Amino acid sequence: MPDNYLPHQTIQSFAPPVRTLLGPGPSDVPQRVLAALARPTIGYLDPAFVAMMEELKSLMRYAFQTRNALTFPVSGPGSAGMEMCFVNLVNPGDKVIVCRNGVFGGRMIENVERCGGVAVVVDDEWGKPVDPAKLAAALAANPDAKVVAFVHAETSTGALSDAATLCRLAHEAGCLSIVDCVTSLAGVPVLVDEWGADAVYSGSQKCLSCAPGLSPITFSERVVEKIKSRGRKAQSWFLDLDLLLGYWGETTRTYHHTAPNNSLYALHESLLMVAEETLPAAWARHRRNHLALRAGLEQLGLGFVVDEAHRLPQLNAVSIPEGVDDKAVRASLLQDHGIEIGAGLGPLAGKIWRIGLMGYSSREENVLHLLAALESVLAAQGRSVTPGAAVAAAQRSYQG
Amino acid sequence: MPDNYLPHQTIQSFAPPVRTLLGPGPSDVPQRVLAALARPTIGYLDPAFVAMMEELKSLMRYAFQTRNALTFPVSGPGSAGMEMCFVNLVNPGDKVIVCRNGVFGGRMIENVERCGGVAVVVDDEWGKPVDPAKLAAALAANPDAKVVAFVHAETSTGALSDAATLCRLAHEAGCLSIVDCVTSLAGVPVLVDEWGADAVYSGSQKCLSCAPGLSPITFSERVVEKIKSRGRKAQSWFLDLDLLLGYWGETTRTYHHTAPNNSLYALHESLLMVAEETLPAAWARHRRNHLALRAGLEQLGLGFVVDEAHRLPQLNAVSIPEGVDDKAVRASLLQDHGIEIGAGLGPLAGKIWRIGLMGYSSREENVLHLLAALESVLAAQGRSVTPGAAVAAAQRSYQG
Repeated sequence: MPDNYLPHQTIQSFAPPVRTLLGPGPSDVPQRVLAALARPTIGYLDPAFVAMMEELKSLMRYAFQTRNALTFPVSGPGSAGMEMCFVNLVNPGDKVIVCRNGVFGGRMIENVERCGGVAVVVDDEWGKPVDPAKLAAALAANPDAKVVAFVHAETSTGALSDAATLCRLAHEAGCLSIVDCVTSLAGVPVLVDEWGADAVYSGSQKCLSCAPGLSPITFSERVVEKIKSRGRKAQSWFLDLDLLLGYWGETTRTYHHTAPNNSLYALHESLLMVAEETLPAAWARHRRNHLALRAGLEQLGLGFVVDEAHRLPQLNAVSIPEGVDDKAVRASLLQDHGIEIGAGLGPLAGKIWRIGLMGYSSREENVLHLLAALESVLAAQGRSVTPGAAVAAAQRSYQG
Repeated sequence: MPDNYLPHQTIQSFAPPVRTLLGPGPSDVPQRVLAALARPTIGYLDPAFVAMMEELKSLMRYAFQTRNALTFPVSGPGSAGMEMCFVNLVNPGDKVIVCRNGVFGGRMIENVERCGGVAVVVDDEWGKPVDPAKLAAALAANPDAKVVAFVHAETSTGALSDAATLCRLAHEAGCLSIVDCVTSLAGVPVLVDEWGADAVYSGSQKCLSCAPGLSPITFSERVVEKIKSRGRKAQSWFLDLDLLLGYWGETTRTYHHTAPNNSLYALHESLLMVAEETLPAAWARHRRNHLALRAGLEQLGLGFVVDEAHRLPQLNAVSIPEGVDDKAVRASLLQDHGIEIGAGLGPLAGKIWRIGLMGYSSREENVLHLLAALESVLAAQGRSVTPGAAVAAAQRSYQG
């Protein structure tokens, strides 16, 4: 009986340091959700678990504001949710119009191509919303397009696009719509039925403040019809909606893959917290904390990447001032203050910071803590800042 | 601000019932692992998290008995691990020999076909191990085959195949090997380097007794070379090894997708428990409890599906006696005794039970509890059983 490669005896149970998560996700997970995560594992066909699944679907429909029967959590992160949409909606040779205004639009193009589809790319500048006029023009120029895909809230830039208009244009042109709501869900209105969106996915670790690893997803009846008539198997077995319908569908519970039970307990709890708070209250809270953060950041001389009308309250992209050392600031915030903020991605690397106030992280104490810490770190970098001014401005914002 | 579809006000935090999980997975998750799962979420690029990832890889290499650099957990269940192997190792048109002796071999065929490969199927009866002579014949008849795939421990039947011989045959024929070790890892010897296996995946929720949702995986250098020279993109973005190398690789930490941090804490803890116990001790424990269970089941007149030489100690498939109501017995075990056992799948549905003694579930108290419960349930079904005989036989087995 060989027994080689024993790992270093120094490995111990992992004790994560204390952090405040103010980056682009994951956000801070509240104790209630962590406690749910740690409840005893039971079988995924246990009647008690099956009853919990029904509640989970109902809670997800509330979060997405939809009556879609086919609403469930994908057993993987947001990128698995994205891929589930593309492998099921895009047939080989299908033309797909992808609106790209950041990293995640780019990832959608990768998905189209790997499904054998043809991507027609509508580009907008990073930091700007998707321009509906450009989508309208692309639809007019491509009457054979089958699908329109765009990102509602671009996590790489903090820009919010007009999903209602984009979905309407897609629908009027006879296209199905795929909408990335990873960062938007529960932070700003996501109104699946009102938009008439067809395939919408999100992530557990942003404004839901659940542990990372699940992707809530919802599909319209049009998608179900398309899948039933596609006459071929999806290229992915794991993400095949036909097969998943057997486990998450209305009446049957056929084994497909082992459900991530404990993660689903946690998602149930985090969605329950959203329902208890109600969506309008959650949206208002995200906005209130964003405005306070903005007031403070302005005192620190930090400007936003996105114009005010299209700014996400839950993800604040700010320009790094000339002469300030990006990595040194983030390292000091993390090591000296226990605060994580996000770096820029792609062409914005080194140029912006991404400050997330998502879900449970969107709280007054975090706004004040961050502003105080940022003031001290920027002062140490030789920036001229008025002591206490940023925090005072945020406090005024809360009082006003 | 619309806010419709509020879920029923009756939904509360989910409180799972007390269960003992003696089915085909998930197995019981020990408190130590549940506690790890519930530790505070931190960022997936946090230096503390990155250090934990290195420990995790080292612990996984021990569990797999390999030095493979490319050893990491897939952010999805075992079926995602399976699909990662096929989408990265099988190019369109590639001939793949799949050995099928149960449900999961059949799933491998699905994967080959969805990757555009050509599956050559070597069938063995359900409940039997894969016959190496049939594989040798298939390799001789298909000199252009590129990959051989088989299941080490068939979860649907409880049969263990000779992975060392099957990998050697594949290798001698110039094929890469894909080996499903979902149910075998840490329950019976899985010796990746000694076998010369190329792509090996497992699941977190079987003999590792971690929460479900992750798939530990390891790839040989031959696979890395094949991927680097394939000259095309994998059909899956989420499961593309090229891209994942950037996050889980040796030196870099490029964002690919949001890692399921809390689930990874739990996997770290469960693998640490395996290393503390040591693999030979874990294998011996699974065998000891299996033998006691067998002694008790024989007293109850229950026979095994698999012959003794190829029986998995961690998954015991037993034939349901004539006249006994499958569903009634499982429902009574669950409702009256809190014990979950598994049903048969596919052609074995209604004909067998699958009794798992995996990981933390493989304990003397569970064996005795199950035998006592099964005796009472079978007696209620009108079977003639000698009161106390099954438990006594198991006790003798432990003492012997």
